[in-house]
Amino acid sequence: MKITSAHGGGGKLMNVLIHDIFVKHFANETLSAMEDAAILPAPGARLAFTTDSFVVTPLFFPGGDIGRLAVCGTVNDLLMRGATPRYLSVGFILEDGLDTDALERVALSMKKAADEAGVAIVAGDTKVVEGRGGLYINTSGIGLVETALNISAHNAADGDAVLLSGYLGNHHACVQSERLGIQNAIQSDCAPLNGMVLGLLNAGVEVHALRDITRGGLASVLSEIAEASNVGIHLEGGLTFADPEVSGFCDILGLDPLYMGNEGKLVAFIPQRDALAALTVVRNARYGQNAQIIGTVRADDGLSVTIRTRSGGTRRIESLLGEGLPRIC
Amino acid sequence: MKITSAHGGGGKLMNVLIHDIFVKHFANETLSAMEDAAILPAPGARLAFTTDSFVVTPLFFPGGDIGRLAVCGTVNDLLMRGATPRYLSVGFILEDGLDTDALERVALSMKKAADEAGVAIVAGDTKVVEGRGGLYINTSGIGLVETALNISAHNAADGDAVLLSGYLGNHHACVQSERLGIQNAIQSDCAPLNGMVLGLLNAGVEVHALRDITRGGLASVLSEIAEASNVGIHLEGGLTFADPEVSGFCDILGLDPLYMGNEGKLVAFIPQRDALAALTVVRNARYGQNAQIIGTVRADDGLSVTIRTRSGGTRRIESLLGEGLPRIC
Repeated sequence: MKITSAHGGGGKLMNVLIHDIFVKHFANETLSAMEDAAILPAPGARLAFTTDSFVVTPLFFPGGDIGRLAVCGTVNDLLMRGATPRYLSVGFILEDGLDTDALERVALSMKKAADEAGVAIVAGDTKVVEGRGGLYINTSGIGLVETALNISAHNAADGDAVLLSGYLGNHHACVQSERLGIQNAIQSDCAPLNGMVLGLLNAGVEVHALRDITRGGLASVLSEIAEASNVGIHLEGGLTFADPEVSGFCDILGLDPLYMGNEGKLVAFIPQRDALAALTVVRNARYGQNAQIIGTVRADDGLSVTIRTRSGGTRRIESLLGEGLPRIC
Repeated sequence: MKITSAHGGGGKLMNVLIHDIFVKHFANETLSAMEDAAILPAPGARLAFTTDSFVVTPLFFPGGDIGRLAVCGTVNDLLMRGATPRYLSVGFILEDGLDTDALERVALSMKKAADEAGVAIVAGDTKVVEGRGGLYINTSGIGLVETALNISAHNAADGDAVLLSGYLGNHHACVQSERLGIQNAIQSDCAPLNGMVLGLLNAGVEVHALRDITRGGLASVLSEIAEASNVGIHLEGGLTFADPEVSGFCDILGLDPLYMGNEGKLVAFIPQRDALAALTVVRNARYGQNAQIIGTVRADDGLSVTIRTRSGGTRRIESLLGEGLPRIC
C-alpha cells in the first residue's frame, strides 16, 4: 500500500495506519493509550532531553536504516551527558507514495534498536507531505542523570587523555557507497553506545567530556570541545583512524576519516590516572573493541587541535567547513 | 541569504547559522551550552512528554506562522494531560533555498510564543534537504504533572458536561483562504491554552478529559474520546459552532466546522456539578470568551456521538474519513 495525503488527515485512515504499523510494533501501555502526551515516572531530580531529525538517503543501507539511526542517534546524545536513556518520542514525516511495507520495516528496526538501548517509545506523531516516497524521522529523548554527574563538552581539562572508541568513517563510506553503487563490504557503524558509557560510569572512571562523532567527523567534534573547554588538543602521530576497507575507500575518493560522519563512535576525555582503566572498559564493551587513546589535552595550547605528522612536526586540524556528505543522517 | 546543503553539514557553516538565528533568539543558558542533550531540573515525580511535527503551508498566515503553531501545538498537548509545560526541543528540517530572513522570522515567533506559554526551548537540531525553500519543524515537549492528577481521554464519565472553548474552523479557513487567494478577515486561532487549563486546575474544578481540537476536527476528537472512555456523547441542537465569517466561508465551500482543524481550541469533560464553574473559568481566560457547554456524556448510548437536529431527531457524527485539508498543521 502506498501512503497518500489522506493518511495525514487526522481521521480514520491515519488511525488505521498508526495502529497497524506503529502501535503494533512499538506496543507499550503508554503509547497504546493514544493520549496527547505520555505521562512518565521520573525517579530522580535531573533529566537529560535531546532531539534529532533524520533525513538519511537511502532509507536502508548495510548495517542499518533510518529507523535504527534515529533511535541510536538520540540514545547516544543522551548518553553523552552521562544520562541513562529512558523514553523516546518519534515524529514521522511521510512523503506521498512511501510504501507501507518499507515503513513497517523501519518501525520494526526502531523497536529492535530501542530494545537494545533499553528505551521505550512513548509518544508519536505522523504527518504526510507531497514527495517521492521519502521519509523523515524526528526522535526526541529523555534520560535520567545521577545528580552528582557533570559530563560536558566544557569540562575537558589539562592532561586529559583523549579516548576514541573505534575506527572512523564506516557510516559515511557505507552511505556514499550505496549512493554511488559501489560494491564493497563496508557496513554502517550505527549502534547504541549504552554499554561503553554506562560501563565507564559503573566502573567509577571519572569522565570529563563525551561526544558522539556524527556529522562533521572527529575533527569538528574536537574543535568544538577545544573551544567549549578553552583548551588545546594534541593528537599522536602514526595512528590508524580507519579500518582497511574504509581506508581503501578514502584513498580512492580522496576522503579523510577525520571529517567523515559516524553513528556509533564516541570520543571521551578522561584524567590520565583513569585512562587505562577507561580503555579496558571501552574495549570490553560491545562496539568498542578497536578503542585507542589518540591524544592529550594541553591547557596552554590555545584552542588549537593539532596532530603529529610523520616528519615529526605538527599539523593543525580545523573544523569541517561547509558540507561533508549531504543527508548522511 | 539562501539555505544550501552546506548548512546541514555539521561544520562551520551550520554552526554560524545556528548561532546567528537559533541561539540568538532562543537564548538561554541550557541551549547556549550547545551540548548533545540538555540537563534539566524536574522537581516532581511525573513527567508529560509529547511530540509533533509541523508541515503547514504557507509558512506564514494571518494570526500565526509555522513557528507559533509548533510551539502552541506541543504546549497544548502537554496541557491536555494536566501538565504544566516546561521544556521544548526544536528540530528544523530546512529545504535548500529557504530564505534565512524567513527562518529568522519563524524563530522570533517561536520565542514569543514560548514566552507566552512559559516554556524554555532547551534542545535543538538542524538538517537540510533538497527542495524548494520549505521548512518542517518538530517540537517535542516536557511538562510536569501533579501526582494526583489523572486527566485522560479514557476518563469521560456518564453525565459529564462537554465544554467547548470557542468557535471552530478559524485555522482551517485561514490556511485555505491563503492558499486559494481569498480575501477575508479570518485569522488562525493558533494559541497556547495555558490560561484556561491551569485556570481550571487552580480553581479546583474536577476535569475528567481534555483534548485540543486539531486535525480531524471536533467530530474526530469526540469519536476518539467516546471510544477511549466507552461512552456515548450527545450534543445539543441549535448551537453555533463557527463565527459569522467562518460560517460564511463554510457555506461557500461546503465545509462543516465540526470537521475543520483548529490550533487554539479544546473540549473538556467536566462533572455536571462543576460545569458552570468551569464555563466561567474558561470564558474569563485568554482565548476562551466564546466557550459554551455543547452536550452531555451518556454511558448507555453505546459509543456513538450524536447531535440533535432541527426536527427534534438525532444525527450520528462520525470521525473524519480520509483527509481534511492537507498540511494544515
